[in-house]
Amino acid sequence: MTKSNPSVLIVGSMAFDDLELPTESARDVIGGSATYAALATCLFAPVRVVAVVGTDFPESAVTALSDRGVDTSGIERAEGKTFRWAGRYAKNLASRTTLDTQLNVFADFRPKLPESYRSSDFLLLGNIHPSLQLEVLDNVPNPRFVAADTMNFWIERERPLLVELLRRIDSLVINDEELRELGEDHNIRRAAARVRALGPKRLIVKRGEYGAMLFDDHGIFFAPAYPLEEEIDPTGAGDTFAGALVGFLAQQTEIDDSSVRRGLMVAATVASFCVEGVGTQRVATLTRADVAARLDTLRTLVHFGG
Amino acid sequence: MTKSNPSVLIVGSMAFDDLELPTESARDVIGGSATYAALATCLFAPVRVVAVVGTDFPESAVTALSDRGVDTSGIERAEGKTFRWAGRYAKNLASRTTLDTQLNVFADFRPKLPESYRSSDFLLLGNIHPSLQLEVLDNVPNPRFVAADTMNFWIERERPLLVELLRRIDSLVINDEELRELGEDHNIRRAAARVRALGPKRLIVKRGEYGAMLFDDHGIFFAPAYPLEEEIDPTGAGDTFAGALVGFLAQQTEIDDSSVRRGLMVAATVASFCVEGVGTQRVATLTRADVAARLDTLRTLVHFGG
Repeated sequence: MTKSNPSVLIVGSMAFDDLELPTESARDVIGGSATYAALATCLFAPVRVVAVVGTDFPESAVTALSDRGVDTSGIERAEGKTFRWAGRYAKNLASRTTLDTQLNVFADFRPKLPESYRSSDFLLLGNIHPSLQLEVLDNVPNPRFVAADTMNFWIERERPLLVELLRRIDSLVINDEELRELGEDHNIRRAAARVRALGPKRLIVKRGEYGAMLFDDHGIFFAPAYPLEEEIDPTGAGDTFAGALVGFLAQQTEIDDSSVRRGLMVAATVASFCVEGVGTQRVATLTRADVAARLDTLRTLVHFGG
Repeated sequence: MTKSNPSVLIVGSMAFDDLELPTESARDVIGGSATYAALATCLFAPVRVVAVVGTDFPESAVTALSDRGVDTSGIERAEGKTFRWAGRYAKNLASRTTLDTQLNVFADFRPKLPESYRSSDFLLLGNIHPSLQLEVLDNVPNPRFVAADTMNFWIERERPLLVELLRRIDSLVINDEELRELGEDHNIRRAAARVRALGPKRLIVKRGEYGAMLFDDHGIFFAPAYPLEEEIDPTGAGDTFAGALVGFLAQQTEIDDSSVRRGLMVAATVASFCVEGVGTQRVATLTRADVAARLDTLRTLVHFGG
């Protein structure tokens, strides 16, 4: 039986980002995959977060989440410094260079689930060590839907664990370069078939300014990216996309080819707002009405007669 | 009054291409923008070609066009060698390096229009010197629709002539890098607005494996690229796209936002076949039935409920 108000559990990072953007530089920007994803999910469904921050992390940043209705009781505050990432974006924002990564308290992160989180219906396993993603799965006995992200680092170093994870999730949400590496084929379609053969019912490929693709039993689907006139900061757009998708699906009666396709359009819309502000600036104040208005425009971008 | 069977005039290059593809190397491949475009246009509408070849160009390659119904009386055979391009593709086919360009007879190309061509209703001005594109326009007094292509070389060296051309065409068909350079903005949407302000009612942006975008008075439209399982050779796919678009439009009662959007979907479909063979191999044998079947699939790729 489907619960009337299913909750989404997000596990991921919370971080300080130092960003060198074409338009400005910004230090100590509150970021991390769990932060972006939670701010997107909370637009649609109740959401709880498991993450770790250091003693230097401002309480106001946690309050910013709880003010949006996010259950933050699973955010652990550990002795030490918060995970920090520094990056520089190319002028066109299409590529970025990591300048520095300080794992700090994130290096010893072991997700600790409050008892109440174990009944979560929807899981979004952010990009953390696959052994930790598996551990979270072990602690949520009966999820209705599980989505996971990963990255080249784990694909190269922890393939067996990742393969184990893939057998246990509904949807893998990765970018096109990660897909090519995981599927060991430069051809997106063949790589997608190989990855789906490892387990996930759905593969969702994030392609930045080119939108997103879905591969499922019904075929392939494209959601375009909303073309922005002002692109400020793409940091977290992929996590925002994943968070919005899972939040949207948690609202749906059925998770099927139709709702997932609509979910991709919604997720592309929400992610576009993320790029309009530095860090979580824009996503943190987003409303359902903002999303609905832009979604209407996005629909017209793929509409043709005949 | 609209004629019942409007003809498309294509002006462009005919060439030998030496291709270093990931899967094979091929020399003396028959190519050139006019060749690819004509083979695509002829699927939909009567087509005539203005181009120049050298004495080394095989008559069989011209016959291959006329066998498909293409009027080849405007193909001039000049003393000397045919235009030759040599290129090497990256393993993923997403980028290529020009190894050699020999303009040969193309260096002195002056489009000579047979008298019967002057009444052409639809024009596709391939990527040649903008002064020559303008000269062709001067010789076709009353076209119903004019599309043109160009490249970075002319954008950098012949901007004033190009700006003059833009005032006189309906649609500019270029790739995203050319758009950024011509619009002097890395943001696609702003660059598109600047280019359209120079004249063309429609701007069509080719984005390779990411499909194509249209900017017109009705907004923006995305046509996805058909995701191929076997990508062999992208040479000429952009010209095939443009040729199919103009050919499709020549068949339509109205050229409006709806028919142009449908045209983009058709053009994306036809262009996908081009990539499945070396050179014109696949496009040269394509049928309307092949196109219709794949177009049905392409439509599903952007279809969502609700």
